[in-house]
Amino acid sequence: MSNSNIVWHSHPVDQQTRSDQKTQRPLVIWFTGLSASGKSTIAGALEQILTGQGYHTYLLDGDNVRHGLCNDLGFSDQDRQENIRRVGEVAKLMADAGLITLAAFISPFRDDRRLVRKILPEGQFIEVYVDANLEVCQTRDPKGLYAKAQRGEIKQFTGIDSPYEAPEKPEVHIQADQISVAEAVNQLLSYLHEIGALQAGYEPVALGA
Amino acid sequence: MSNSNIVWHSHPVDQQTRSDQKTQRPLVIWFTGLSASGKSTIAGALEQILTGQGYHTYLLDGDNVRHGLCNDLGFSDQDRQENIRRVGEVAKLMADAGLITLAAFISPFRDDRRLVRKILPEGQFIEVYVDANLEVCQTRDPKGLYAKAQRGEIKQFTGIDSPYEAPEKPEVHIQADQISVAEAVNQLLSYLHEIGALQAGYEPVALGA
Repeated sequence: MSNSNIVWHSHPVDQQTRSDQKTQRPLVIWFTGLSASGKSTIAGALEQILTGQGYHTYLLDGDNVRHGLCNDLGFSDQDRQENIRRVGEVAKLMADAGLITLAAFISPFRDDRRLVRKILPEGQFIEVYVDANLEVCQTRDPKGLYAKAQRGEIKQFTGIDSPYEAPEKPEVHIQADQISVAEAVNQLLSYLHEIGALQAGYEPVALGA
Repeated sequence: MSNSNIVWHSHPVDQQTRSDQKTQRPLVIWFTGLSASGKSTIAGALEQILTGQGYHTYLLDGDNVRHGLCNDLGFSDQDRQENIRRVGEVAKLMADAGLITLAAFISPFRDDRRLVRKILPEGQFIEVYVDANLEVCQTRDPKGLYAKAQRGEIKQFTGIDSPYEAPEKPEVHIQADQISVAEAVNQLLSYLHEIGALQAGYEPVALGA
């Protein structure tokens, strides 16, 4: 710095450098759907398969975001919007880091998801609609949240007293109340393979017991 | 999902998995110092060297954060605090992704930097004080910001009418107005080597012309 003879020749490390190093195409795979539709389970299973095949991934979900980055936000429409905006920006940074980024959020509003698609480079956003019937989700209700919402103990719960706007043209539409996690993961792998996001020669994966 | 015979055996991908895959120790290297002290330049140069040596990195700085994640924030004390809080949370996610994360922010307040240290796992936060005399920074003034602040056109500018609280015990103290960028990078590489964060056998790097 004080030595003006030394000139730093900057070749900034960019997304291309980082993804070349990882020999993969950076992506944001965005899972949207009702609470208990299976978003996190499917995303987690896909991540495990991808990591096992040598891909560099990261999974963003409510667990690691609501307790940290977005711990100042509630569940009003405005706060939900800000939550998804921030997660979208972080997903963008993760993709910029060259990672295959999986994001699993109810993200009920079309405009918010559109915004995330818009801030990402062309072709790096994949919307996955994890479609499960509301009744099925209410029956599953692993955390008892639907029951609480029905009793009015939780307000503005998606599907009960807050709307869910289904994707119109998602890249992948998973019928999550009709197929297994393994089948959903294979559907996703097949799609990623088809668009050239994965190297050739993958095999369908047998998951679970 | 509908097939209750299939049980998904979850082995979640965690920080350990992700950093093992990258054969590196996840870190947050946090550069703090006055505007024009050389934070971004040194961080960018270090990143380039690390990436060239095969490490997986990401650089967070004002450029990719203030226009996105934190584009709703200004420069009041409260907004600066929220800016650093969010950046700290993102750095934590990046480290959780197994990356060596470099963050270059003025981050003038001790408490805010302490908070970032605190949310990270033990040993994963390295505070780097990029120490350059205010006069030197004012003379450099690459973006004309100090001049504007002096004329009162920018308010709450660190070092002019907003305080900078220097680190008391930074892991690395760079005398950025006395050494070159190359020397600063070598000081950092040497420290990272010393704490075992880099594999054995690195060579000091000759940078620039």
